[in-house]
Amino acid sequence: MLDTAIRNAEIVTAGDRFRAEIGIRDGRIVAVAEDVGAARTEIDAAGLLALPGGIDAHVHLEQYQGGGVVMADGFESGTRSAAAGGTTTVMPFALQQKGQSLRAAVAAYHAAADGKCYVDTSFHLIITDPTPQVMGQELPALVKDGYTSFKVFMTYDDMVLNDAQLLEVFDLARREKAMVMVHAEGYDAIRYMTRRLEEAGQTAPYFHAKSRPQSVEREATHRAISHAELTDVPITIVHVSGREPMEQIQWAKRRGMNIWAETCPQYIALEADDLKGLNMDFEGAKYVCSPPPRDRDSQEAIWEGLRDGTFDIFSSDHCPFRFDDPKGKDVAGARTAFRWVPNGIPGIETRLPILFSEGVSKSRISAERFVALTATNPARLFGLYPRKGTIAVGADADITLWDPAREVTLSQSLLHHDCDYTPYEGMQVTGWPVRTILRGQTVWDGQKVTGAMGAGLYLDRGTSQAFR
Amino acid sequence: MLDTAIRNAEIVTAGDRFRAEIGIRDGRIVAVAEDVGAARTEIDAAGLLALPGGIDAHVHLEQYQGGGVVMADGFESGTRSAAAGGTTTVMPFALQQKGQSLRAAVAAYHAAADGKCYVDTSFHLIITDPTPQVMGQELPALVKDGYTSFKVFMTYDDMVLNDAQLLEVFDLARREKAMVMVHAEGYDAIRYMTRRLEEAGQTAPYFHAKSRPQSVEREATHRAISHAELTDVPITIVHVSGREPMEQIQWAKRRGMNIWAETCPQYIALEADDLKGLNMDFEGAKYVCSPPPRDRDSQEAIWEGLRDGTFDIFSSDHCPFRFDDPKGKDVAGARTAFRWVPNGIPGIETRLPILFSEGVSKSRISAERFVALTATNPARLFGLYPRKGTIAVGADADITLWDPAREVTLSQSLLHHDCDYTPYEGMQVTGWPVRTILRGQTVWDGQKVTGAMGAGLYLDRGTSQAFR
Amino acid sequence: MLDTAIRNAEIVTAGDRFRAEIGIRDGRIVAVAEDVGAARTEIDAAGLLALPGGIDAHVHLEQYQGGGVVMADGFESGTRSAAAGGTTTVMPFALQQKGQSLRAAVAAYHAAADGKCYVDTSFHLIITDPTPQVMGQELPALVKDGYTSFKVFMTYDDMVLNDAQLLEVFDLARREKAMVMVHAEGYDAIRYMTRRLEEAGQTAPYFHAKSRPQSVEREATHRAISHAELTDVPITIVHVSGREPMEQIQWAKRRGMNIWAETCPQYIALEADDLKGLNMDFEGAKYVCSPPPRDRDSQEAIWEGLRDGTFDIFSSDHCPFRFDDPKGKDVAGARTAFRWVPNGIPGIETRLPILFSEGVSKSRISAERFVALTATNPARLFGLYPRKGTIAVGADADITLWDPAREVTLSQSLLHHDCDYTPYEGMQVTGWPVRTILRGQTVWDGQKVTGAMGAGLYLDRGTSQAFR
Amino acid sequence: MLDTAIRNAEIVTAGDRFRAEIGIRDGRIVAVAEDVGAARTEIDAAGLLALPGGIDAHVHLEQYQGGGVVMADGFESGTRSAAAGGTTTVMPFALQQKGQSLRAAVAAYHAAADGKCYVDTSFHLIITDPTPQVMGQELPALVKDGYTSFKVFMTYDDMVLNDAQLLEVFDLARREKAMVMVHAEGYDAIRYMTRRLEEAGQTAPYFHAKSRPQSVEREATHRAISHAELTDVPITIVHVSGREPMEQIQWAKRRGMNIWAETCPQYIALEADDLKGLNMDFEGAKYVCSPPPRDRDSQEAIWEGLRDGTFDIFSSDHCPFRFDDPKGKDVAGARTAFRWVPNGIPGIETRLPILFSEGVSKSRISAERFVALTATNPARLFGLYPRKGTIAVGADADITLWDPAREVTLSQSLLHHDCDYTPYEGMQVTGWPVRTILRGQTVWDGQKVTGAMGAGLYLDRGTSQAFR
Repeated sequence: MLDTAIRNAEIVTAGDRFRAEIGIRDGRIVAVAEDVGAARTEIDAAGLLALPGGIDAHVHLEQYQGGGVVMADGFESGTRSAAAGGTTTVMPFALQQKGQSLRAAVAAYHAAADGKCYVDTSFHLIITDPTPQVMGQELPALVKDGYTSFKVFMTYDDMVLNDAQLLEVFDLARREKAMVMVHAEGYDAIRYMTRRLEEAGQTAPYFHAKSRPQSVEREATHRAISHAELTDVPITIVHVSGREPMEQIQWAKRRGMNIWAETCPQYIALEADDLKGLNMDFEGAKYVCSPPPRDRDSQEAIWEGLRDGTFDIFSSDHCPFRFDDPKGKDVAGARTAFRWVPNGIPGIETRLPILFSEGVSKSRISAERFVALTATNPARLFGLYPRKGTIAVGADADITLWDPAREVTLSQSLLHHDCDYTPYEGMQVTGWPVRTILRGQTVWDGQKVTGAMGAGLYLDRGTSQAFR
Repeated sequence: MLDTAIRNAEIVTAGDRFRAEIGIRDGRIVAVAEDVGAARTEIDAAGLLALPGGIDAHVHLEQYQGGGVVMADGFESGTRSAAAGGTTTVMPFALQQKGQSLRAAVAAYHAAADGKCYVDTSFHLIITDPTPQVMGQELPALVKDGYTSFKVFMTYDDMVLNDAQLLEVFDLARREKAMVMVHAEGYDAIRYMTRRLEEAGQTAPYFHAKSRPQSVEREATHRAISHAELTDVPITIVHVSGREPMEQIQWAKRRGMNIWAETCPQYIALEADDLKGLNMDFEGAKYVCSPPPRDRDSQEAIWEGLRDGTFDIFSSDHCPFRFDDPKGKDVAGARTAFRWVPNGIPGIETRLPILFSEGVSKSRISAERFVALTATNPARLFGLYPRKGTIAVGADADITLWDPAREVTLSQSLLHHDCDYTPYEGMQVTGWPVRTILRGQTVWDGQKVTGAMGAGLYLDRGTSQAFR
Repeated sequence: MLDTAIRNAEIVTAGDRFRAEIGIRDGRIVAVAEDVGAARTEIDAAGLLALPGGIDAHVHLEQYQGGGVVMADGFESGTRSAAAGGTTTVMPFALQQKGQSLRAAVAAYHAAADGKCYVDTSFHLIITDPTPQVMGQELPALVKDGYTSFKVFMTYDDMVLNDAQLLEVFDLARREKAMVMVHAEGYDAIRYMTRRLEEAGQTAPYFHAKSRPQSVEREATHRAISHAELTDVPITIVHVSGREPMEQIQWAKRRGMNIWAETCPQYIALEADDLKGLNMDFEGAKYVCSPPPRDRDSQEAIWEGLRDGTFDIFSSDHCPFRFDDPKGKDVAGARTAFRWVPNGIPGIETRLPILFSEGVSKSRISAERFVALTATNPARLFGLYPRKGTIAVGADADITLWDPAREVTLSQSLLHHDCDYTPYEGMQVTGWPVRTILRGQTVWDGQKVTGAMGAGLYLDRGTSQAFR
Repeated sequence: MLDTAIRNAEIVTAGDRFRAEIGIRDGRIVAVAEDVGAARTEIDAAGLLALPGGIDAHVHLEQYQGGGVVMADGFESGTRSAAAGGTTTVMPFALQQKGQSLRAAVAAYHAAADGKCYVDTSFHLIITDPTPQVMGQELPALVKDGYTSFKVFMTYDDMVLNDAQLLEVFDLARREKAMVMVHAEGYDAIRYMTRRLEEAGQTAPYFHAKSRPQSVEREATHRAISHAELTDVPITIVHVSGREPMEQIQWAKRRGMNIWAETCPQYIALEADDLKGLNMDFEGAKYVCSPPPRDRDSQEAIWEGLRDGTFDIFSSDHCPFRFDDPKGKDVAGARTAFRWVPNGIPGIETRLPILFSEGVSKSRISAERFVALTATNPARLFGLYPRKGTIAVGADADITLWDPAREVTLSQSLLHHDCDYTPYEGMQVTGWPVRTILRGQTVWDGQKVTGAMGAGLYLDRGTSQAFR
């Protein structure tokens, strides 16, 4: 006898859309059929879509920031918010601090996450200090242990790798078959622009966007692609913001290069002008992230890329900082210049509704493509497939029941993160997750988070399907 | 109790690849599960892939040719050959002769097909004479009756439509939500080149390729796309042969235009040089089709397009003429000039093995992409989905069991068509259809065609998913 | 002793800009020197630029229109207006009417022009009826006689050639080394759009622009280029209006094809919105030409093309019709639909000031590039170089003295054509021709036309430099 | 009375080609006329072209190399070789060594050049150490003194600037209106490839080319262009070697960016395979330069760029090292690995014959374009125009008489440099400089160098015309 039967749903996968029942046993999907037979728990999904639970492949939780800044969300609130947003797997980062052993970094993040998570998690590693020890021993061993992806930064004082280091990391990734995620913005270019803006007294949050124009992201994207070509390794360019960097990725893909790309809700739902706040005031800080949102033309470009396969995955880049935190106050007080505003915005819970509403409800992308971008492709790209990322026999029963007609006005009051605002306040969306099922258990019932803290598993991962 | 259970297969769809059993009842898939339960008929598919039965969306059978030329395959032999090649649905053309009522043309093809087919069929219409009667009454009515696609020709004496006619047909297609398939080669350009070649005494079959270079196909493709832009209708450019026409399609798709494209086995497995035969002799006539095969660079381009989504479907353009037919003899005798060689080659049975072997076995495309190109996308594009084109609950139980490791040397002696040669004689392939199941019945068992003549149904179709 | 010395000028050629005196004898430039020595006539050009006299390679004068419509300018007023605008050579068309011998057409235009011209002229032929007689005998003979260029139309009821005819003309042009100018707009597409607009009651002049969108011009441009590729002949695409057709030309040039291109003042100084008139009224008819003006983005594109060499020549396409003519009245009365508005606007006199002001004065192009576009390149392209098109020893002394600082408001009252309006009324320009010298004689002194009617010579021409 | 008259020549400038006499007085051109009158010295140039004396804007002479390596040519032999090759102005580099004052560097090169030069010279500065002193004081002052261009390197141990430094130099160049020349190859990428090749034992000269593939140059080109975009300054990408970096420049130019580009003889006349020597031996070292020669496809691309304006100037990048020098021996002995081969080849004397022969004689470019690339554009780009770079009244009488029909086999025995080989040994050329005239004086008579050592002037320069 089944544990659970989901009946009357319309199932959507990356390839198909059809009506059938879903039978679940021991947390896994064991049958998809016209009639799956009896079950202890019945779920009537009439009028709903059954989607693979969302996989958010780009999430920052409880990540060390330096300078006393603290992230608004830890593993508890972050994964709780994910569950309420229809997401069943999140992939936070384990950040190596300079001078730190990578093993120690990984251990620290496990310690922080352990027993706290409402949904399943798996860590990407952030490499900031590729010492011989790290490169020669720790990293190869960690890849074998299932930490099969890592992120590198081409900017940020505490994290930037130079080209020689990037090439070394890429070379190692080829040898070990690990996926490298690249934050592509040029460090020196940003510092140059920041200095010029500050010299001109242009320090409001809005000038954050001016300090890192598309050309800066485009250049770094081209550079990363060229390094990947030289080292013959697949890489993923993350959080692509606009037309210019996107065109570099299209160019690379058309040449047959093994390049993958991610974009995020902020690049279809926000614009640089949002950083102006009410009147070039600090309200604009609510929209400060990197790369910054661009303009209408870039939003159009991003949609083209979401449609035509330029983008493989759609993640939140959830990176939450409180606006009225005492430290935030401090920032908003003495340190109002954009240089001091932490780069990042919350979005783990709003990711799926924004893409569904702007994409599927407005007929820009199909529901199948939505599933590919938000679940199947992330699973394939990061070694979780076919356990995660689809509704298929044998997969974990991670299923989000989605009401495609539900109209909701996004608001901070609806959300379950510990951040104190949402940049999408007031946005109207059509389509909403009304039930999130994690390995057969309902962890969000449409009203409240029903899962247990600590019920989320940590997932060791296999090799990315990019190594074909 | 199930009629049939397929056990131990690895199922591949356009989106997923996983192990499960398939349960069939009344010709439809009713369950995909770890254990589908008891069944009257057991099929053990260990070591095999279960693929959706192939849909060949571009097939010429028993089509009127004029000039006394007769096609080598009628509905009986053509669909028998399809079944043996892993294909469960074929879409032949019902050709309107000039001066003929379209209804009469459709009736004639139904009469020819009735009771003859081994697999399911559905007709595209060929419009050669868009009279007010045809455009104002017959065609709208036929679309409503489920003939939801038609083909137009930009070349061939008996079929060419001029631009004014093309625009009218496209306009009607928008209003009636029908899919137009376009044979894109420029009539006047081909006549000009043919005249120049003939004046120079260059009449061997090889010069067929010279008479219609890529620029001729590229121009017509651009023209068709521009007409589609003006009339705001989706169209499908069929049998795209090389890099230049393909680039026009890529350009259109990148601009967000609703353009679809097909390519065929001859453009990945043959080259213009094959038309040289042994020594510029008539042997080259075995490779005469339009557009002609191109060169290595174009083959590479076609693979890029198959990978990156430029091409949506992969069809055979099966268009068989006998090489040693008395009429063929006549052709080979008195009329050896390329002008007199019928344009077309057989390929309905070899379509899937060639794409699987050159594509999947050689890691150029994934098995999922193979399924999308050969089954799911044709079904979506021509209004057969979700009844056809996938392995999902509710769909017809059209399933091809595929041995991915079987090595076969293609040869005329293996094939089931009534043509007297294959242009792929001697080609080595890896991967072979070992059982073809049509609505639950095995019609090809890997050795012989086991289905009954006439068991194939005629399929009325819905609206193409291109009208989104 | 010299006839004339021009002193103190700054000479500009397509390649150089420098100060020197110019010595003229017998209508030709015999010296460019620091001191050319004594002369009977002294011209002090202090503060002025000495430019090669303009060559307007695209002018319609006294051209047969059909339907009782008469052009506003004949050879007398047209060449008078040219002289006043700094132009010393104009190239009108000798139009073959359907059924007419080409020789007879040429004779008729010579008869009309003889003794009437204020500046030098040379005819392009317009081929509308490529009969065997025309193609086999007349045209080859006329090319030998110095009529080394002809124009073909891809639209217009009375002039359109079909693709077979275009290919024949192109083929002949290759054999005879003649330059073909192509009016590239698709006939059937325009008719289709016109019918749709008329069915919707959209007949105001503004809808002229809607009836021939960029896609229509782009398609015909691609088609013409493809025909040129097939026949291996250089062609010139004339009056390119916007980004889309221009991109086709850029693509062709980058592929190394022998394609040349022209644009006109209306595509940098007018927009489709000008056709709206005051309130979608008949005032918009003043801006009706084909292709129609486009939008800001296309104006930007045209500037790119003028800068980067996409465009080789800049002509007026002067094609004047009176707005308040009795026949115009008739048009404005009973026949207000855009279908009945003659296609064409005046511009022979304003061509150089508009390009100089918008281009050179606004630093979009250099003075050298201005000279190349308006004089040197037309001379090279149409077989007049080095007799015409530059300031060099041995060339005809066709020199325009230009005041780069003169500010003028364009107005009908300033102009010397017989048209009754200018579409550029009220436009401010900086830079003005203050003296036009034709073969050593001043034909425009900045105030009045001082040349003699009939002083203009007819020029036989050599082979275009496009045949390299 | 004139000092010199050149009669019967066909004059070629960047814009024109015509027959006239040239009159010279006091080293300057004072007349171009049908008859320039009497002169003390008569030069009969019947059958010859009179071209502006070549300007070689990229020459390394007596440049400090480090590691004990010495350049084969100093100012004496280098400028002597230039004169014999038809070049009248060379622009060597004054290299700042790390830690050195820029003023001191300039003084040292003046000391070396003083009294040694056979043709006119002017220095570009090489900035290797942009200290606050250099950037804040020396460089602005030097620009004002006429050193209006400088070069920066993105690779080489002793010269590489990082991105922050490049941005500072570009920013200063904008403020001071100086032209920056960029050697665009990525330092870290080359080191990475070098290490991999050496680890694989691949150290023959041929692997020099493998150590810096096109992607390395393309990436650096894109990066430099992006930095120029950010700082809003024109730059010149020097010695562009192949299709990939060239496409970056085309992309930038099409976007309207103020980017200029140079290519060199080695990229049209050599290939990477030349580095293989006889059998992967040290003979290949004769072709080692950076970027390395590429392949046929890139040669074709370079020709496209020379034709279509992608390339503005054509220089030698003369950088001569002796093959059998004791130090060379040493290199050829103990240090045979490509890492130790000095990067550079001789070419100052063969530059013009190679471009003329491969370009003009083979009809790939016009003679006018040849003049633009080799004389007029370099003069414009580096602030020497109109004193240098053209045949026009007022310009220095720097004239090369060119026999377009002379056939010569290039050979070390013909050349006047102090290098001991030419990489073009045995190459057949058509077209040869038979007299070089520097400011009215014949410095090369077709047989021997007739000019006086020290007759060459040092030229202060104005602002580049790129600042428009």
